[in-house]
Amino acid sequence: MNTREEQVLDRIDRARRRRPRVREERITLSHGSGGKATHTLIEAIFLDAFRNPLLEPLEDAAALLIDGTRLALTTDSFVVSPLFFPGGDIGDLAVNGTVNDLAVSGARPLYLTAGFILEEGFPIADLTRIVESMRAAAERAGVQIVTGDTKVVQRGKADGCYVNTAGVGVIEYPGLGVSTVRPGDAVLVSGPIGEHGITIMLARGELDIDADLESDTAPVHELVAGLLARVPGVRALRDATRGGVATILNEVARAAEVAVVVDERAVPVAEEVRGASELLGIDPLYVACEGRVVVVVDGAAADEALAAMRAHPLGEQAAVIGRVAADPPGIVLLNTTFGGTRIVDLLVGDPLPRIC
Amino acid sequence: MNTREEQVLDRIDRARRRRPRVREERITLSHGSGGKATHTLIEAIFLDAFRNPLLEPLEDAAALLIDGTRLALTTDSFVVSPLFFPGGDIGDLAVNGTVNDLAVSGARPLYLTAGFILEEGFPIADLTRIVESMRAAAERAGVQIVTGDTKVVQRGKADGCYVNTAGVGVIEYPGLGVSTVRPGDAVLVSGPIGEHGITIMLARGELDIDADLESDTAPVHELVAGLLARVPGVRALRDATRGGVATILNEVARAAEVAVVVDERAVPVAEEVRGASELLGIDPLYVACEGRVVVVVDGAAADEALAAMRAHPLGEQAAVIGRVAADPPGIVLLNTTFGGTRIVDLLVGDPLPRIC
Repeated sequence: MNTREEQVLDRIDRARRRRPRVREERITLSHGSGGKATHTLIEAIFLDAFRNPLLEPLEDAAALLIDGTRLALTTDSFVVSPLFFPGGDIGDLAVNGTVNDLAVSGARPLYLTAGFILEEGFPIADLTRIVESMRAAAERAGVQIVTGDTKVVQRGKADGCYVNTAGVGVIEYPGLGVSTVRPGDAVLVSGPIGEHGITIMLARGELDIDADLESDTAPVHELVAGLLARVPGVRALRDATRGGVATILNEVARAAEVAVVVDERAVPVAEEVRGASELLGIDPLYVACEGRVVVVVDGAAADEALAAMRAHPLGEQAAVIGRVAADPPGIVLLNTTFGGTRIVDLLVGDPLPRIC
Repeated sequence: MNTREEQVLDRIDRARRRRPRVREERITLSHGSGGKATHTLIEAIFLDAFRNPLLEPLEDAAALLIDGTRLALTTDSFVVSPLFFPGGDIGDLAVNGTVNDLAVSGARPLYLTAGFILEEGFPIADLTRIVESMRAAAERAGVQIVTGDTKVVQRGKADGCYVNTAGVGVIEYPGLGVSTVRPGDAVLVSGPIGEHGITIMLARGELDIDADLESDTAPVHELVAGLLARVPGVRALRDATRGGVATILNEVARAAEVAVVVDERAVPVAEEVRGASELLGIDPLYVACEGRVVVVVDGAAADEALAAMRAHPLGEQAAVIGRVAADPPGIVLLNTTFGGTRIVDLLVGDPLPRIC
């Protein structure tokens, strides 16, 4: 065994012995990053308390069986800052995010709820704009917003507007899930990555960069439905939001106890995203998308899956970016552009807070 | 026609001619009160944009028909301050609130989602306590928390912890709803009112009152199921949260275009609540409960409904508090303890912000 493999195996061993525990005494921004701290928080606090067979797969939506009907149920809160950005706003983000969580669970999205937490002093005109954007996004995704709730907190106790959406859909393709992934599978993404995250960072005006970039926020239900109808070998789908593609691949590797090997040159990244990521010192693999899907399929069906995704406008730049191997289990490896190999782990901090 | 009746009819006429419009330029606390400003916000902004037949009844939950199964879907965000108070905390409040919205819609509560917005610096110990309280409340109500989401915002951008819960249940008693209420019906409450709201006000320590009072937060699904199984004449149920019993009765009066006439002496109010309300200058009818139900039943079934409610521990102090009349439509009238009669309107401001 060479040294790297020894290190990797040792690390896996240590992780397995460890019962997850939150070591901090207080919440930090990294608990909301989607990375390592988020996973620990979920496993140590939420999963431990709420433990039940429907929650434990930790998929994007829970799969329910009610009176013979298979339903997917999901929720997401949105705290993106700024509320309005090139290509979208918190309103369409909240609708698309929940539509996408249902779609990647093999469900046809049907009904959404909308919960608003508003700060005293928030402009009615901004609220109207957000609500109109939700209406348009719901129409585009073919869902109805059927119930809601509004709370108001005092000035200084929120940041303008937070939105929660929960969603229900009918599961048309049961059995999808990261735990079904196996060695020999292929890994695809539906388009160039990181455009949402970088757009948000630039919209904050903290970086002196002028890039012609828009959020990729979009509903992926049609792209996914087309893929699932055409390709029987699909194992799992995830939308690569917080923590980006790297986080999804780590979730796959851990849940299925496999290795995911990614070819860096194969990952589609727009020039503007690559440039801004370099300035920010962050790998685009960790940057959030809001309209991109990571797909794992039977290796033999990779070409067919690629063709199916490219047939949809949102998947024109879809690509096969890697493959699933048996070893080392639980690990994502990146074959870099420069010919090296490195581990792509879950993020420890949160370089891009409040991206969604 | 006497002068009061003239005034009332004139007011109704003006209200009918008016298309709801938010006159303020910015959100105020009263938009979150559950009262007049909340209703205007919902009608002018949310209903106008999202308009669909499932949303328009504005019941506590939307009634969905998915593949032949009748489901109720509901959502609520919780921003109560303080987070912990005598008798409960934001955790059980969030579970009971959504369980109750499903129950009063004639549904058997089944599955909940949980979305957390946490402020950087929030103590992990407090979060653990809230989550444990949600677990216990879910167990008590026989529901499972099957999916969730956690977001973190920077220090000063929230107030510790906000919780959203959405819920799904199977509708076992379809057709309930405030629009089915008709003259001759009886109005009941399941127990003494206002204990939650007054407990929260006292817990803030802004009033120098020592009262032996606890929040009434509780799941009402069993009480409601017992009532519905025994009494066929139930028209509508609502849990009297923000805005209290008075707000619910106004919603009934408006939706069904009837008058609701309440006998003040019949309304159960604990001495501590009455005393604190007097000091606060607020009518207990407007104070939030979190485990009390307002029930409208066929007048002939009033005694049976009362007996059914009193058979459950949460309904031991249930009472018939009023009746439904034809005139004046859209108006709630109170026959006061002192022999007078006055209109009980929707609240204009918000005397008790962030009660749930």
